Amino acid sequence: MRERELIEKTGRALSGRHTAAREVRVGIGDDAAVFRPTAGHETLLTCDWFLEGTHFLREKHPATSVGWKCLARAVSDIAAMGGVPRCFLLSLALPASHTGRWVGEFLDGLRRASRKFQCLLAGGDTTRCDEILINVTVFGEVQTGRAVLRSGARPGDLIYVTGRLGEAELGLQLLKRSRQSASSRDRYMKKHLYPEPRLALGHWLVKKQLASAMMDLSDGLSSDLSRLCAASGVGARLEMAKIPVRQTMHSNRKDLAAALQLALHGGDDYELLFTVPRKRANSLPRSFRGLPLTQIGIVTSDKKIVLVNESGREQQLDPGGWDPFRARRLTGGLRPYS
Amino acid sequence: MRERELIEKTGRALSGRHTAAREVRVGIGDDAAVFRPTAGHETLLTCDWFLEGTHFLREKHPATSVGWKCLARAVSDIAAMGGVPRCFLLSLALPASHTGRWVGEFLDGLRRASRKFQCLLAGGDTTRCDEILINVTVFGEVQTGRAVLRSGARPGDLIYVTGRLGEAELGLQLLKRSRQSASSRDRYMKKHLYPEPRLALGHWLVKKQLASAMMDLSDGLSSDLSRLCAASGVGARLEMAKIPVRQTMHSNRKDLAAALQLALHGGDDYELLFTVPRKRANSLPRSFRGLPLTQIGIVTSDKKIVLVNESGREQQLDPGGWDPFRARRLTGGLRPYS
Repeated sequence: MRERELIEKTGRALSGRHTAAREVRVGIGDDAAVFRPTAGHETLLTCDWFLEGTHFLREKHPATSVGWKCLARAVSDIAAMGGVPRCFLLSLALPASHTGRWVGEFLDGLRRASRKFQCLLAGGDTTRCDEILINVTVFGEVQTGRAVLRSGARPGDLIYVTGRLGEAELGLQLLKRSRQSASSRDRYMKKHLYPEPRLALGHWLVKKQLASAMMDLSDGLSSDLSRLCAASGVGARLEMAKIPVRQTMHSNRKDLAAALQLALHGGDDYELLFTVPRKRANSLPRSFRGLPLTQIGIVTSDKKIVLVNESGREQQLDPGGWDPFRARRLTGGLRPYS
Repeated sequence: MRERELIEKTGRALSGRHTAAREVRVGIGDDAAVFRPTAGHETLLTCDWFLEGTHFLREKHPATSVGWKCLARAVSDIAAMGGVPRCFLLSLALPASHTGRWVGEFLDGLRRASRKFQCLLAGGDTTRCDEILINVTVFGEVQTGRAVLRSGARPGDLIYVTGRLGEAELGLQLLKRSRQSASSRDRYMKKHLYPEPRLALGHWLVKKQLASAMMDLSDGLSSDLSRLCAASGVGARLEMAKIPVRQTMHSNRKDLAAALQLALHGGDDYELLFTVPRKRANSLPRSFRGLPLTQIGIVTSDKKIVLVNESGREQQLDPGGWDPFRARRLTGGLRPYS
């Protein structure tokens, strides 16, 4: 297979009604894509690595999941700004052995994600490599001046998260232990393999102007909250009992402690973390289209992150999530938390 | 070094007056960059791989060249549409051993390119990897409806190239043969290591509405012209004697033949290939700010590419440039042309 054939295969797989969209005036096949911005809007730009060995394992992760997730992760950054995704560029480096069935399944997962998120393939770059390397750039839009940044949290604001935290990390653990291939019937594996960016909520929060700061949870609550606090020049006080951990069968102390560790430090949830000024909090429902919204704490002026247990005992929460320069999440035995 | 430190180092290296530019409202450090599009303009989007072993060699290519060239290649795609680059995203995966001196020199080359092309760092993604992996996305702008596509060439249009072709390929050959480190004093090596995208000319051609089709020469004239012809549904007739080969010391037949092979199939020149309707060709100077513009042939309705020698003998020209799925340009002995 030549490069041209791979580009054509990609174009065919992701074509359809989609490519006729007015925003992408020129797509695959020219030097650059031509995108017509919407009047009164700003453009959002984000890119994400998705590398074999670092972000997924060739033997464990189905190619459809790799296709879905490489786009979902980048789209989640658009959701975290309150924006709407428009189009994406796909950079793909593949071994010659993977230009057949593997890439077919990969493109199938990518197409499903592209349709679900209404984010069109506008172009990209392909080359050969011994390892599977993916980089996705997503272009989104948001009404001018309305993007929700990490830097807007103020002392007294309430801190919220969506969904249940730590489920994707548990799914990864199950996937690594399982001898069979991955099953998307398992709730936790499914959350790890096919994450759903919280686009509708992010957009709604912008429309209602409720959130003062927002980001998505990709590396774990402890790491990501510390980034949001640093950007805003604030701290946080979290109530342990309020953190939405995964539901455990037995409510024994050991199981609960393990679930809390996953919720605090586990990555890949792609839930939203956001802050709301106290007097606007009444306008926020307990759930949004079936997605739970949980208040887990409050923004403080003291620049540290404190976790308070049910007896009122405080402990400082340090970033314990994933940092690629400290540990390789998927391949090494070394884990920043365990 | 942690990921945060690498991001901060990158931000510091590329900051300055540049980051205060109005277009990039939010840069590094949030979930996505926020870019304010210019009224009456379309956005141009392009991305390019720049991978160790495929696009550069760790031992042969200076880190400053890697930094310069990864941006220059992507910016060249913006030049090829007649656009103006605005900002870029940098995706960088590095071995832990390369987060010190190597990345410092890399960022130095990248900063010089960023200033030269007036293209600001707006964000990116970093991770760890055993090999050096780079992906650059560039966002440019062009007046609405004015982007020059590959598909606009019509039979009878004249075909032009800028500069001299094959020089960068010769530079690569010299670099691979040399025992010492690369020298940017050598004209050919310099062209390979520090290519200059033809931004000013591309933009001028759009302003004067002279070009009917355009692309940049990255994989070699024979490959790239066949892409332009395919996109336009046309063919081409090239005059061998007109092709601007590198200047040779001796004009013996062997040297001239070798120079022609380099000019036809050598990659990495980042010169522009464009077509001009015959009746507009009078408005085109012989050189533009010191850059030679050479008419090398004519667009035909017959969908093949024909090369005519000085005695009038014709031969079909097949694509012989670089295709990553057929041969690895830098690492293998296998070359599609030799």
